[in-house]
Amino acid sequence: MEPLVGSIEAGGTKFVCAVGRGPDDLRDEIRFSTGGPQETLARAAEFFVQQQRRHGELAALGIGCFGPIDLDPGSSGYGRISATPKTAWIGTDVVGALRRALELPIVFDTDVNAAALGEWCWGAARGLDTFVYLTFGTGIGGGGMARGRLLHGMVHPEMGHMRVPHDLERDPFPGRCPFHGDCWEGLAAGPALEDRWRTPAENLPSDHPAWELEASYIACGLHNLVCVLSPQRLILGGGVMEQSQLFPLVRAKLRRLLADYVRAPSVAGNLERYVVPPALGKRAGILGGIALARRLLAGPDSPFPRS
Amino acid sequence: MEPLVGSIEAGGTKFVCAVGRGPDDLRDEIRFSTGGPQETLARAAEFFVQQQRRHGELAALGIGCFGPIDLDPGSSGYGRISATPKTAWIGTDVVGALRRALELPIVFDTDVNAAALGEWCWGAARGLDTFVYLTFGTGIGGGGMARGRLLHGMVHPEMGHMRVPHDLERDPFPGRCPFHGDCWEGLAAGPALEDRWRTPAENLPSDHPAWELEASYIACGLHNLVCVLSPQRLILGGGVMEQSQLFPLVRAKLRRLLADYVRAPSVAGNLERYVVPPALGKRAGILGGIALARRLLAGPDSPFPRS
Repeated sequence: MEPLVGSIEAGGTKFVCAVGRGPDDLRDEIRFSTGGPQETLARAAEFFVQQQRRHGELAALGIGCFGPIDLDPGSSGYGRISATPKTAWIGTDVVGALRRALELPIVFDTDVNAAALGEWCWGAARGLDTFVYLTFGTGIGGGGMARGRLLHGMVHPEMGHMRVPHDLERDPFPGRCPFHGDCWEGLAAGPALEDRWRTPAENLPSDHPAWELEASYIACGLHNLVCVLSPQRLILGGGVMEQSQLFPLVRAKLRRLLADYVRAPSVAGNLERYVVPPALGKRAGILGGIALARRLLAGPDSPFPRS
Repeated sequence: MEPLVGSIEAGGTKFVCAVGRGPDDLRDEIRFSTGGPQETLARAAEFFVQQQRRHGELAALGIGCFGPIDLDPGSSGYGRISATPKTAWIGTDVVGALRRALELPIVFDTDVNAAALGEWCWGAARGLDTFVYLTFGTGIGGGGMARGRLLHGMVHPEMGHMRVPHDLERDPFPGRCPFHGDCWEGLAAGPALEDRWRTPAENLPSDHPAWELEASYIACGLHNLVCVLSPQRLILGGGVMEQSQLFPLVRAKLRRLLADYVRAPSVAGNLERYVVPPALGKRAGILGGIALARRLLAGPDSPFPRS
């Protein structure tokens, strides 16, 4: 029997905590609004203490966290949130607080890398070794794998902040990223949709021109990701992508942008299997934490979860 | 004593072949213009046959090749050039031709991944595990590593074909990529410089406004690479970068574009150690082939060349 592990999906808006082994064994999930760092982390820790009383020791805890975060094990800031619009959380030692409370092996990564790993274990990225997972919501976040390893680096990817072409005649909206103005996120995340059309995105009818423009921006960012990482698949989640009319628009525009330059069976034809929603849906994040913990126990080069 | 290996830097304009072990032992290099595929590959093979008569058996051959190429060992097209403006080379089975002639273990990768590996072994990427190597010449090519593994994927990166913002008022030049018009390469590779200013780039004085604009485009592409891959260093080679006035311009513009969003010691300050020329200079490519062959023998997770 595989060991029971814990998972935290630590978001800027809400926290989700659960214990389990995978999609068929996910227990006692709780979710609560993200408050101040101390109370929020204490509440998460308390949940796992109770779970351990009920189920026995957990073998590890996986955390997919909003960020930017410090993932460098050699850094004095490892395990901390480094900079965020949620100023109360800047510098918060997420890993340290939970390690002190729980005395468990802990693995810490970005929310999008966790979700990417969940999709790799049990979802749309099974059998792949190089792919991207993106979420389009209040921001645009991206994670994924290159040749079987989650994307880290100097810090971690910040895919939403790529610069993309912005035709001011077609779209005079200046963009709303506080750092970069009209970067990808500044033009195409949920708040940009709302500001540009002066209405909540979910109120825009599915044939509104907003979606055509949105699909153009999304496709342009995806084109760049194809050029940089050559992913075997692009998995697109988040609230904005719940507008399912976006998928065919994005695929058609991406095909036009690639212009037959990249020749691979995956991108020949209509891209229906290349640009996809997460197979785990909204559970990708919490299952990603489970996957992080199980991979920590199994080792990064083990055949888990394919054994 | 480490075994002697062979290297080919297979470019669209010229081929370079050599045998050796590394920067301090690189022998009998020959270079010749790239002609038709059959004669060119035969000439390369003949060189290694002669070398083996002189030095004894080579242990392996590393090839860094112009492309796009097929790197998927599971594909029937593995080892071939898949599409290139040099139409005579389309479909050429580079690996097959050399294997038949030489009966050696062969490792095949892009020209830029080979150069990246050379820099990782003996140059500007020593001690890093995630970095990018770019060449700015007749095109823009990019390779590198993510967490210790060379970037492959669906095919391999085509970083030069990213879309970047293009302000038509500042720069009405339409771009000259035959596939994408004003993609990064279409705006910023050597031929774009020549077409835009109607003079060979090397004739433009170092204070010509061409370089300010060129640096803006280069920095914008680098910004996107930082967002996608979070590299620990960016190594910039190729003929265009021999205009050394570009380096300080590019660094200053990249710093402005990042706008303090990415917080890491490497990008704080003036980026002098973050955006650098290749330490191996023009030898990065041929030494990259040596490094590919040695890594093939040592195994991808061996401590070579750090042992």
